[in-house]
This record gives sequence, structure tokens and C-alpha cells, in this order.
Amino acid sequence: MNDVEGPVNVGVDFVQSLDRGLRVIRAFSDRHDRLSMADVARATNQSRAATRRFLLTLESLGYLGVDDKRYYLRPRVLELGYAYLSSSTTVEVTQHYLEELSKELNESCSACAYDRGEIVYVARAAADRIMSVNIGVGRRLPAFATSTGRLMLSSLSPAQLDDFFATYPRPALTNKTITDEGELRALIATAGEQGWIINDEEFEHGVRAVAAPVYDASGAMWAAVNISVPASRASMKELESKFLPRLLEVTEQISRDIKR
Amino acid sequence: MNDVEGPVNVGVDFVQSLDRGLRVIRAFSDRHDRLSMADVARATNQSRAATRRFLLTLESLGYLGVDDKRYYLRPRVLELGYAYLSSSTTVEVTQHYLEELSKELNESCSACAYDRGEIVYVARAAADRIMSVNIGVGRRLPAFATSTGRLMLSSLSPAQLDDFFATYPRPALTNKTITDEGELRALIATAGEQGWIINDEEFEHGVRAVAAPVYDASGAMWAAVNISVPASRASMKELESKFLPRLLEVTEQISRDIKR
Repeated sequence: MNDVEGPVNVGVDFVQSLDRGLRVIRAFSDRHDRLSMADVARATNQSRAATRRFLLTLESLGYLGVDDKRYYLRPRVLELGYAYLSSSTTVEVTQHYLEELSKELNESCSACAYDRGEIVYVARAAADRIMSVNIGVGRRLPAFATSTGRLMLSSLSPAQLDDFFATYPRPALTNKTITDEGELRALIATAGEQGWIINDEEFEHGVRAVAAPVYDASGAMWAAVNISVPASRASMKELESKFLPRLLEVTEQISRDIKR
Repeated sequence: MNDVEGPVNVGVDFVQSLDRGLRVIRAFSDRHDRLSMADVARATNQSRAATRRFLLTLESLGYLGVDDKRYYLRPRVLELGYAYLSSSTTVEVTQHYLEELSKELNESCSACAYDRGEIVYVARAAADRIMSVNIGVGRRLPAFATSTGRLMLSSLSPAQLDDFFATYPRPALTNKTITDEGELRALIATAGEQGWIINDEEFEHGVRAVAAPVYDASGAMWAAVNISVPASRASMKELESKFLPRLLEVTEQISRDIKR
């Protein structure tokens, strides 16, 4: 599976300035605020002198604006994430099918990839249109507690899965969240064997989800697609009898289309 | 207006490696393909040796994957664009109102910011849900030929507008596209004075749009919102009588909400 990082030894070829500059951009994502130079220096754990050079560079490139000594991201930053979406016909194909499936079922459908202990929404079609842009593409959630995450974890090698359990925290997010390593390993193995998984309010109270995998041309699981449903609208049984069959049809169709 | 770059003199403080690394990420956006080292070197106008270091660095940071010597963007790149969306409550407020307006009118609504001769979609609510993800947030279009672009251009200083006309090309996109500098200057001035503008198939055959501005807390025009309608569904007269009044109500509401 290509989309899980192994250790990449770069050594002398590592361009530290690039790493540090990207950290500066990311420093803005957790804050709904404009940031001062001191804020950014603190968030990125860098000296003010170094931070200043990165801020000035990003400003001169049009990625940051500054107003009254406080910096803010400018829309040019979207180009970077957009590069991912527009370079991937796989994402486009998936988005197309999610829109159809969401319309048909009148429920929200999402495709998530795996990245360092978390899942990342790469496509999404929402049933309820009145929602925050925050629940959109690019959002990250812990893999261990989500249907798509557990499915993606089933595609890791044993060594990668050991590393996952050793590295990432597993806080209980609801009173139903399973956090025990042994139980999770069993659920992940089952998900991989049967090719689907249901999440019963473990990530969020009142929300159930069923997920199935999508495979890319190389045969690797590149994402998992889920249908997310208010618990009041579907029992565990209904998720399996009503939503799962349609989900499996659609994810198999997506995998076929991607391979063409 | 803060969202239009003036010249920023950085000089010795400019971190060239950051600029060049970001270029590498952007090189992927125009190509629906995996890129070899030679492809990236060509696209970014850099030596292979330099390109190699940036590719290795981005790979080790999890932004790029590599398969059979061809590089591809990984979902971590979405974090960067997501930083913009999640750092801006302004975008969230706008997205919320666009969803409502789109639902009410059953037409597509978009908010666009200005960036170096182009408009960038920063929020969007589509009436037709079966559409490509490409017509989404982050997409860029030439400012001179679009309703939102002409409105944003009206907020430039005279010097900035001179620079705009001297710098960016104005190809005819349909047989209706106005490209003459004098005519465009008049249209832009009128848009600024009346606080709205209608575009009659100048950007795309069969599509009309009406746009109005949104102002941020500092009083600067930070974006323009448009309603885009198939020409078959609305005459120029209907756009002005039916859609414009609602659009003005909503954009004024957004501006008020943002200022709170």
C-alpha cells in the first residue's frame, strides 16, 4: 500500500526550510484568528528571526496577508490543496458516485484516505446541505474510532499496524468507543476479511456509519467510503440490510472505474 | 484592500527553498498524472538535482508518494488548503448563507476572492449536485471576464488597476466576451458604483450570473458572491428583477455577520 508512509531516509537531501515553511502555513489551521509573529514562532517552535523570514517569504509569494502586524492566510493557499484534488481523477470519479449515492439515499457519504493515524476526507456529499464548510474535504479524524479508519487500518502490514498502536492515542470519544488494543485488532481484522464495517456511535453520539473499501489501479486500498446516518433513522440491523448492499455495489463500481 | 498584493520587498530574507518547494506541489495541479523527476524539473524550471531534494523532502514529510519512480500528491496536501478554510470564520459564515440561498433559488451560488488577476472560489453551493469536484473551492478563473472578478477589480486602487490591465491577458472566452480595456474599465467602475454587476454569457456560453460584494470587518471587499444561472432559465431582466434583490439582501447579511 503506497499511501501509508514508511520511513523515508532523506538525510543530507532534506530541505529543512521547506518543512519549516509548511509548518508555518499549518500553524494557521487550528486557530480562527489572525496570528502575530510571536504566535507563529510559538506554534512552530522556531525563533522569531526564523519565523520572520518565513512569514515575509509567504507574504511576498501571496500566501499570507498582513494587517496591523497580524498575519492571515490568503486564498492562494487553496491552490496547494487544490493541486491534490485536481491531479487525481480518482478523487473526481469517487466524488461523482458519492453525489449520486447521497442523493439516492438522502444520507451523507464520504470517502476517506489514511494519513499518519488519521483519516482525511478526500471527497464528500452531504445530505443536509445546511452545514459548516468545516465538515468538508481535508478534515481529519482519528482512524481508530471511525468506520473508514478501521477499514484503512486493515490494509496496513503487521509492522505498520504495530507502529500505529504504539504511536497514536486512542481517547474514548463517546461512552461506546472501543479503545482496547486487543478488541480493536479483532475489529480491524474482521473489517478486512469481510470487506466492510459498521460503527455504532463510537465516534459521535447519535451517529452510525457503514464503510466499504475502494481499490486503486494497483490493487491497493486507497480510500474507504462510508454512509453516515443518524442513529434515530437506522438500527444496526437496517444499516446492514438496507445500506450495506448499495454501498458495496457503489464501492465496487468506483474501484472498477478507477482501474480503467 | 488587504487581499491584493502590493510589492513586498523581502530581499535577503526571502527563503528561496520554500518558494521552490511550493512550486513543486503546484506542478502537480495541472496534470492528471503521476510525474517523474524529469517532469517536475521541467515544470518548475529547476535542475534535476534540486528537484530531487524537494521531491525527497516532500515525500519524507508525507506530502508526496512515489510508485515506480513516479510521484503523486498524497492527501496530506489537503491540510494546507484546509488551513485557509478552517482559519477563516468569514468563509464559514459565507458558506452557510450560500447553502441557504442556493437551496431557496435552486441555483448555484459562489463566493470568490481576488488573487493576482484571477478570482478564486472560496465557498460554493451547487444547485446541481451531480458535478465534478473540479468546480469547487480553490478553482481559479480570469477576473476580467467574470461577474465576481469585475466586482473585485472595482475595489483596486487606480495604480493596482493599471497594473492589472498591463499584466494579465484578456482572451475572448465566448463571442460575447468584452476584452477592450476602455469598455472593461467602464463596466468595472459601474459595478463599483452600483454595488452589483451582471455577466451575460461572457465567461461561458449559456451562463448568466449576477454578483454583489461582501465586506469584511475592516470594510474591505474581501469577496464577491454570485448566482449563476443557465441563460435558458433567466433573461437579463429576470436576473435583475428576480435574483438581484435577494442576492443584495444576503450579501448585506453576510457582511453584517462577518463584522460581529
